[in-house]
Amino acid sequence: MENWLPSLKTNTPQEGFELAIKLSQKGVEYTQPSAEIRRRLRPVYSRNANSLIFVSGVVSNNFQTVAAANNYWK
Amino acid sequence: MENWLPSLKTNTPQEGFELAIKLSQKGVEYTQPSAEIRRRLRPVYSRNANSLIFVSGVVSNNFQTVAAANNYWK
Amino acid sequence: MENWLPSLKTNTPQEGFELAIKLSQKGVEYTQPSAEIRRRLRPVYSRNANSLIFVSGVVSNNFQTVAAANNYWK
Amino acid sequence: MENWLPSLKTNTPQEGFELAIKLSQKGVEYTQPSAEIRRRLRPVYSRNANSLIFVSGVVSNNFQTVAAANNYWK
Amino acid sequence: MENWLPSLKTNTPQEGFELAIKLSQKGVEYTQPSAEIRRRLRPVYSRNANSLIFVSGVVSNNFQTVAAANNYWK
Amino acid sequence: MENWLPSLKTNTPQEGFELAIKLSQKGVEYTQPSAEIRRRLRPVYSRNANSLIFVSGVVSNNFQTVAAANNYWK
Repeated sequence: MENWLPSLKTNTPQEGFELAIKLSQKGVEYTQPSAEIRRRLRPVYSRNANSLIFVSGVVSNNFQTVAAANNYWK
Repeated sequence: MENWLPSLKTNTPQEGFELAIKLSQKGVEYTQPSAEIRRRLRPVYSRNANSLIFVSGVVSNNFQTVAAANNYWK
Repeated sequence: MENWLPSLKTNTPQEGFELAIKLSQKGVEYTQPSAEIRRRLRPVYSRNANSLIFVSGVVSNNFQTVAAANNYWK
Repeated sequence: MENWLPSLKTNTPQEGFELAIKLSQKGVEYTQPSAEIRRRLRPVYSRNANSLIFVSGVVSNNFQTVAAANNYWK
Repeated sequence: MENWLPSLKTNTPQEGFELAIKLSQKGVEYTQPSAEIRRRLRPVYSRNANSLIFVSGVVSNNFQTVAAANNYWK
Repeated sequence: MENWLPSLKTNTPQEGFELAIKLSQKGVEYTQPSAEIRRRLRPVYSRNANSLIFVSGVVSNNFQTVAAANNYWK
C-alpha cells in the first residue's frame, strides 16, 4: 500500500478529526481491499442509522489517538 | 466543509459535553453528507433504545477526549 | 438545557460512578429530548439483557473520565 | 443505595479484576434496580455467547480504570 | 476462585497479549462459571465472524491495560 | 505459537497501523486457531458493512496502544 500516513500531527483539531475519519476508512480498506466491493457497501451503511453510529464510534476512537498525538492542540 | 472545530477547549464541563455531542454528530455527517437522508434516519434511531445507547457510547468516547484536552476543567 | 454539569469532581468514587450514570443518561437525553418517548423506551431496554450490558459499557466509559478527573480519589 | 464503592484501591490485580466485575454489575443494577428482573435475565445472557463477550468487554473497560487507579500494582 | 492473576507484568509483548486473552476469557468465566456451558458455546462464537471480531475487541481493550502496566515494554 | 510480536515499536505511523491490523487478526486467531475455518469466514465479514466497521473499531483500539508505545512517533 502507498504511503498514506506520514504523521499523526495536524495543524488544527478539525484536520485531526478528518485524519481520524481517514484512519477509520483505512481500517476497512485493509480488510476489504476491493474498492468495488466497498463502493457497493456504501449505500448499505450510509443509510442505516446504527451503522452510521458505529462508524462515528470508530472515528471517536481514532480521534482520541490523533488528539493525544497533537497534545490536544494546546 | 466549513470550519466547525476551532478548538477542543471549552469554558465548562457542560460545554465540553456538548462539544462531544457535536463531534459524535460530525462523525455521522462526514459519512453521510446528505442532510435529507440524516433527517429521515432521525425518527429511526431516536426512538430505538439500543440506538440511543450506542449514541451515548460514542458521546462518552468523545467526552473522554474533550475532558482530557481541558485537563478535566481542574 | 439547564446547568447540569458544574464539575467532574466528586467526593467519593461512588458519587463518581453515579455521575458516570448521569453522563450516560444525558448522552441519550440530548439525542432524544422528549421525556415522554424516553419513558416509553424504558421498559424495553431495562428488561433486555444486551441493552443493559450496553448501558453498563457506556457507564464504564464515562467512569473512566470521571475517575481520571478525580485522580482516582487517591 | 448503600455504600458499595469506598475505594478503587485493591491489594492485588485479581481483586482489582473482581472489582471491575462488580462495577460492571452495578452499571446494570442502577439501570434495572429490580433484583427479580435481573435474576430472570441471567439465564438469557449467561448462555448467549455474544452477551458473554459483551460483558467481558464492559469488564475490560472497568479494569482499565481500576488498574490505572492502582498504578497497575507496580 | 484460585489465584490466577499474580501480576500484570510480562517478559515480552507477546506474553502480554496472551495475558490479555486470558483476561478476556476470565471476564466470561466470572459471568458463566460452568465450564460445561462455556464448552457448548465455543462452536457458536468460534465460527461466527462477528463474535470473533467482538472477542478481538475485548482483547484489544485488555491489551491496552497490560501494555500500559508494562510501560509498553520499552 | 511462534514469536510474532517481538516489539510494539515501529519506524513509522503507517507501520504502526499495520501492526494494529495484525494485533486485531491475532485476537481472532487465538480464539479460532483453524486457518481453514477463518478462511471460510472471510467472505462473510469482508462483504458485510457492519462487520467491516466492527473490524475497524478493533483496529482503532489496537492503534491507540501502538501509537502510545511509540510516543505517537513525535
